[in-house]
Amino acid sequence: MASVSLSDPAVQSYILYSGVLALKVLGVAILTSRVRYTKKVFANEEDAKRTKSKVKHDDPDVERVRRAHLNDLENIPAFWILGALYLTTSPEAAWATLLFRLYAAGRILHTVVYAVTPLPQPARAIAFGVPFMITLYMGVKVILHYFTAL
Amino acid sequence: MASVSLSDPAVQSYILYSGVLALKVLGVAILTSRVRYTKKVFANEEDAKRTKSKVKHDDPDVERVRRAHLNDLENIPAFWILGALYLTTSPEAAWATLLFRLYAAGRILHTVVYAVTPLPQPARAIAFGVPFMITLYMGVKVILHYFTAL
Amino acid sequence: MASVSLSDPAVQSYILYSGVLALKVLGVAILTSRVRYTKKVFANEEDAKRTKSKVKHDDPDVERVRRAHLNDLENIPAFWILGALYLTTSPEAAWATLLFRLYAAGRILHTVVYAVTPLPQPARAIAFGVPFMITLYMGVKVILHYFTAL
Repeated sequence: MASVSLSDPAVQSYILYSGVLALKVLGVAILTSRVRYTKKVFANEEDAKRTKSKVKHDDPDVERVRRAHLNDLENIPAFWILGALYLTTSPEAAWATLLFRLYAAGRILHTVVYAVTPLPQPARAIAFGVPFMITLYMGVKVILHYFTAL
Repeated sequence: MASVSLSDPAVQSYILYSGVLALKVLGVAILTSRVRYTKKVFANEEDAKRTKSKVKHDDPDVERVRRAHLNDLENIPAFWILGALYLTTSPEAAWATLLFRLYAAGRILHTVVYAVTPLPQPARAIAFGVPFMITLYMGVKVILHYFTAL
Repeated sequence: MASVSLSDPAVQSYILYSGVLALKVLGVAILTSRVRYTKKVFANEEDAKRTKSKVKHDDPDVERVRRAHLNDLENIPAFWILGALYLTTSPEAAWATLLFRLYAAGRILHTVVYAVTPLPQPARAIAFGVPFMITLYMGVKVILHYFTAL
């Protein structure tokens, strides 16, 4: 029976890029906060009061960052779990490492084109689609490997 | 001290159903996109422009799929972590496997009755409640097992 | 090469507090439901019909609990993954345990001051900030440890 070892380069790559992506998700919270302070738009009474701003739930710039954040939550936790499960299927290390790298690069680019420097489509579609396909691929591989456990 | 082995059928079951649920969550993104294209309703200017649609944030069909998606995010990552932690408490394999199966079936049904074929209540309440109780149960088991680590 | 053992007190602490936080996230769903029933405000037609309530998406009390919930989703899954990855870097057990305890205490307090008993700022800012810094710290530690896997 295969096992997962911390000395496997694919496992180390998974740990590194999962950590990078976690920091990236947390970074979007900082970005949201910065946009809120710049535009003086808050979601809670007590925040608005403290900063002499107003409560507003439809500022286009704040909402845009919030959509980027939600898109992260819809995708990145799925990567964390699928990447870990995929490692238990004994993938070839160089291939797994390539997938993890591409995934992380795609999601970082997604945040940049969505929330930092809006670029015309299909920039965001590509930055979303490549990582999305990688998670689909890993999910299918996991299911095929453990199918007998149904 | 107990350990977790990939040859344990409960572990294999956890991996399989966690993978299935990750694909299911990703699938809701595809569903959202399909509803957006069908109804020609988008959240971003650049998407609306490209498809000659309009920006709208309150289309009832799109919002319904988005609520189903958010409900997934509120529940399924909790299953991923609690299922993994629960496996470290040496549960009986047949029982753990039954819980994982029921959880996955419930959440798939939840998406169907919420976002695909809206059914009258309490269909959605049951499809939400059974998996919810399973995660509560696993959480309590984990806490009782590791209580001394407080 | 280091490994992670269930007999390590830091690992047991991680498991305990990850389980506590998962139950806490699930608890906010119960809280949301309670506020919805008290104020008779629902998001779906079929729920409103069954309880003779109305569909409304901007009730301030419901939205406040929902923001607390979303804030959990933006932060706690990042803790689950970063805490697990951080354990693979062989941290000093007493220090790691302290971080996990503080994180859990901060996030529980965050929910209380956000969704149960609204307190004036900076109560919520502190309850958000301390756990946030802990996840940033663990993320940086993980990246520095696995930097060579880039």
